[in-house]
Amino acid sequence: MLGLTILGNNSAIPAFDRNPTAQVLQSMDESFLIDCGEGTQMQLSKYKIRRSKINHIFISHLHGDHYFGLIGLLTSMSLLNRTQDLHLHAPPELEQLISLQLDFASTHLSYALHFHPLVEEGSIVDNNKITVSCFKVQHRIACWGFLFREKKKPRKLNAERAKIYEIPAAFYENLQQGEDYITKKGTIVPNEEVTTEAPKGKSYAYCADTIFDESLAEKIMGVDMLYHETTYLKDLHERAAARFHSTTVQAGAIAKKAGVKKLLIGHFSSKYETLDEFLTETKEVFENTELAIQGCCYLI
Amino acid sequence: MLGLTILGNNSAIPAFDRNPTAQVLQSMDESFLIDCGEGTQMQLSKYKIRRSKINHIFISHLHGDHYFGLIGLLTSMSLLNRTQDLHLHAPPELEQLISLQLDFASTHLSYALHFHPLVEEGSIVDNNKITVSCFKVQHRIACWGFLFREKKKPRKLNAERAKIYEIPAAFYENLQQGEDYITKKGTIVPNEEVTTEAPKGKSYAYCADTIFDESLAEKIMGVDMLYHETTYLKDLHERAAARFHSTTVQAGAIAKKAGVKKLLIGHFSSKYETLDEFLTETKEVFENTELAIQGCCYLI
Repeated sequence: MLGLTILGNNSAIPAFDRNPTAQVLQSMDESFLIDCGEGTQMQLSKYKIRRSKINHIFISHLHGDHYFGLIGLLTSMSLLNRTQDLHLHAPPELEQLISLQLDFASTHLSYALHFHPLVEEGSIVDNNKITVSCFKVQHRIACWGFLFREKKKPRKLNAERAKIYEIPAAFYENLQQGEDYITKKGTIVPNEEVTTEAPKGKSYAYCADTIFDESLAEKIMGVDMLYHETTYLKDLHERAAARFHSTTVQAGAIAKKAGVKKLLIGHFSSKYETLDEFLTETKEVFENTELAIQGCCYLI
Repeated sequence: MLGLTILGNNSAIPAFDRNPTAQVLQSMDESFLIDCGEGTQMQLSKYKIRRSKINHIFISHLHGDHYFGLIGLLTSMSLLNRTQDLHLHAPPELEQLISLQLDFASTHLSYALHFHPLVEEGSIVDNNKITVSCFKVQHRIACWGFLFREKKKPRKLNAERAKIYEIPAAFYENLQQGEDYITKKGTIVPNEEVTTEAPKGKSYAYCADTIFDESLAEKIMGVDMLYHETTYLKDLHERAAARFHSTTVQAGAIAKKAGVKKLLIGHFSSKYETLDEFLTETKEVFENTELAIQGCCYLI
């Protein structure tokens, strides 16, 4: 299971107590910070999200509302004496900025910051629990989406049944990997007799800031939850296109085409004080839609 | 009269809903933003301070808690289609950072940003209402304090008395500048007969982040209000010195030596949840002290 907490859901200018973009995807083991608009470190404190569980930060692109909070977070982590490594996946240019900001302050971070420039589509994190890959989205400047996939878990062992078949405990791990057991007498105990399928790993796609682009659907086909921006309501589709953003019904269309289970919409323009209409319009196209609301955690 | 509104009063790491340093000094005509920690643009919205009246921004030094909110404010002003010029007075290195951040976002500001590097002590703003000068303070990296002085206002005319002396209206401006009037018959009407002294221009000194440095007193002698940091309570004077910061009683000593009218203290370490003790300790040395509290406006 994964949980996604929204730290900021607004576009460009903070307004109506809506912060610029930042999200935290949490598993039982670790947390992934996705974009880091100004004020993200305050939002992490407000919503009691432990920084020590964040080992990877992903920055989609270098518009300020997606990264101006990063340097503050990085330096605060150091002031709090973090020692564990931190991995930053971001457009290449960001490395120079961070380096200058640290130099000007005569600051050395208390931990190792590993900078991983985003240069081509593909896997960027791969551990025994999850894979993260990046893919290009179409925006005014170079911009990346991120796809998180939990790995398939080992099959669930039915220990009582394994005992009945007198399978030695040393073989249990093989059972969990799906192997059959062969007794000393040569009898085959089919794996399904002693294990059951583990729940599937979940998937989450974050499409950052993007123009309406139907080809995106292939890259995120069938994910459990899709975050797609809806900067504008549907009547402003021309403005959306001119600014490389999307509308409600366009986000709904992508979700439908990609056959995702659930759609989360955000990155609302500061011209809108209320958000109800975003939900109504998107649901006309894709029913299982929710608004990304700050402080709310969406389970996947 | 001047009014100083506190937007952030904490040091280094935001904590207990206390933001990093930022203040706005307001006169009837314009506003001056002093330092700009992360979240300053949200604080300006929260406390209903009009950005359009800010024509000058002053950055004391390049520790992040004093400037990480600047780039967000500058770009938001542009997104809000500001057209009037903006003057930024800051350490020279900041120009490169801003320029890179705008380049990476392919952003052109909607207004002219004039960068004035702080290189030597002296006057940096001088208009018909106010002068601002900068002075060096001792911190871990190059750091500047700012001294604001309202100009002396014209004398107040007593129009009824001027009529009794049959002084022509064309001479009223000369009266306000302190001149005597000489009648056609050669009689002198002393200026004091028809005008009264205008209230004195007020002064405010912002000492940024500084180690305890008694020589500072000369630079801010007799100001109406002094802001001096108190990062730590008095028992931590060794830590304060090691980090080029000050304690409560040290700030009080500077205020006393400089003979200021009022002392405002801030830049509280995030190790302290409550602030009462800061006030108690400082008042032991300098009675007319107040805590810098976010959202409060201190009249000068």
